[in-house]
Amino acid sequence: MAQAQTQAPTPASDNREILAEDLVQAVIARMADCEDARFKQVMASLVTHLHAFAKEIQLTPPEWMTAIQFLTATGQKCDEKRQEFILLSDTLGLSMQVVAIAQASGAAKVSSGPGTGTPLMGPTEATVQGPFYWEGAPELPLGSDLGTDVPGEPTYYHGRVTDTAGKPIAGCAMDVWSSDSEGFYDQQKGDDAPMQLRARFYTDANGNYHYWAIKPAMYPVPVDGPVGAMLTRLGRHPFRPGHMHKMLSAPGYQKLTTHIFVSDSKYLDSDAVFGVRNSLIVDFQAQPPGKAPDGRVMDSAYHTAHYDFRLARGA
Amino acid sequence: MAQAQTQAPTPASDNREILAEDLVQAVIARMADCEDARFKQVMASLVTHLHAFAKEIQLTPPEWMTAIQFLTATGQKCDEKRQEFILLSDTLGLSMQVVAIAQASGAAKVSSGPGTGTPLMGPTEATVQGPFYWEGAPELPLGSDLGTDVPGEPTYYHGRVTDTAGKPIAGCAMDVWSSDSEGFYDQQKGDDAPMQLRARFYTDANGNYHYWAIKPAMYPVPVDGPVGAMLTRLGRHPFRPGHMHKMLSAPGYQKLTTHIFVSDSKYLDSDAVFGVRNSLIVDFQAQPPGKAPDGRVMDSAYHTAHYDFRLARGA
Repeated sequence: MAQAQTQAPTPASDNREILAEDLVQAVIARMADCEDARFKQVMASLVTHLHAFAKEIQLTPPEWMTAIQFLTATGQKCDEKRQEFILLSDTLGLSMQVVAIAQASGAAKVSSGPGTGTPLMGPTEATVQGPFYWEGAPELPLGSDLGTDVPGEPTYYHGRVTDTAGKPIAGCAMDVWSSDSEGFYDQQKGDDAPMQLRARFYTDANGNYHYWAIKPAMYPVPVDGPVGAMLTRLGRHPFRPGHMHKMLSAPGYQKLTTHIFVSDSKYLDSDAVFGVRNSLIVDFQAQPPGKAPDGRVMDSAYHTAHYDFRLARGA
Repeated sequence: MAQAQTQAPTPASDNREILAEDLVQAVIARMADCEDARFKQVMASLVTHLHAFAKEIQLTPPEWMTAIQFLTATGQKCDEKRQEFILLSDTLGLSMQVVAIAQASGAAKVSSGPGTGTPLMGPTEATVQGPFYWEGAPELPLGSDLGTDVPGEPTYYHGRVTDTAGKPIAGCAMDVWSSDSEGFYDQQKGDDAPMQLRARFYTDANGNYHYWAIKPAMYPVPVDGPVGAMLTRLGRHPFRPGHMHKMLSAPGYQKLTTHIFVSDSKYLDSDAVFGVRNSLIVDFQAQPPGKAPDGRVMDSAYHTAHYDFRLARGA
């Protein structure tokens, strides 16, 4: 072609490009009109760390594309019973980081609260919610047995819910859920599988609760998705020690999401989601056949698991 | 209950929990058996920055859940024609960061290459691929018109592909794609819409290319998904200046993914994906009706857009 090249150097006054070293500030500057100060703060920090990560490891275009495909597959693995992004957050320890931040902030509120003359104890420690919470579990009366027709050793769960000064909390909602003794949650048993080993109880007038279920087994987090592939490539095992999930809420108290862990379970030392807290490990005491604490007559051996919960005041 | 509490303090020798300040190192330590050194490096850096971000902004559990839901929705918005995670990366400037890292690494290779006696110029600058690349566009002969039946002003695209010393590259594959003059890509025109304004050309024996298409208009990135909601909440506009995508590949040369930008387009100063480079801005020269450079007789006004590409040697 004889025609002259038209992309002559652009005059300096017409400089439109953003140099690599100015890119983070350019992205943040573009948020100038954001009216939500907290969202702006979060996104500015996110952009800063995201770019710092890419620069630190000199992320290549093919690696970037692998990450795009991984995140896409993670989102597409989610459905109403499966939350692969929570699993990703859990296995990278981010969920426990968020739990620890919230717990530290809650502890600060407790220690700065008004004195009552009664020694304050900290609230029960929190741990991850995990990917298997399922809204709408049945509300059942205290003493109900969730373990009917479920493989597993019968276990009697009992204890009390109080505030951090030891005052009982009546009518506290307690959501409980767990895997069965083979390590599977109801949500993993097929599209049409009904709810199992889930319920909401309410504490009685003295703050007490008791119910029957089974002794939960250690199990692998779901490994048939992108997160499982990531764990395999990292040389990590996918197992969690046996635990019973608990979510407690009562008006005027901070919501508590936690577990109790089975003290003789494997993987307490290497929980795939970093969720173990010493204060949440409970002895599941073996009991011979006979009359259980609630008067039920057991014709086989069973366990008792006792735990008292303490909630912090607050919204 | 009269029964004794069983969660007595765990002996120190039986300490299973990971303190918040040790969490990042614990997650990284769990990668000890990873056999892919690069993957381990990437993931360790990712975990470090992810936790630093959460701690810096004191991420709350509800904010964490918002993020989980956002990422899930982003993954679920993706399909074979839509890549919302690329759009997210683009709008946060991460894609251009990766482009800049790769370009810097490629430039280093060029400047350290063996001397040829001919002055070396840098390769053509890269920019984002964007979310609208669609594999399998038709291979067309040089001179083809992609703009038939598409709204827009006819434009004659032409130029040459050389190496960084100016030597022509024959048979270089050039993928091109763009929106129409109303700002829409074929992929946005419904599930059954055919490919439009896409093709693959090959340079001739002298490294030259020419084809007809339309002058692309500025347009908004797709705003009907999670990324659009994010931009709105950040107070950001979603517009990109008009541009024609180019992807060049030839054996023995580094693949180049770039655009040419329309010099009189709006938003060159605030591209929503931070992709503008001065060296990629091209004057679309207005031409009167008559005989075009390839001999075609135009009965209406049209544009010419000239750009020469330089590829760096390498894999």
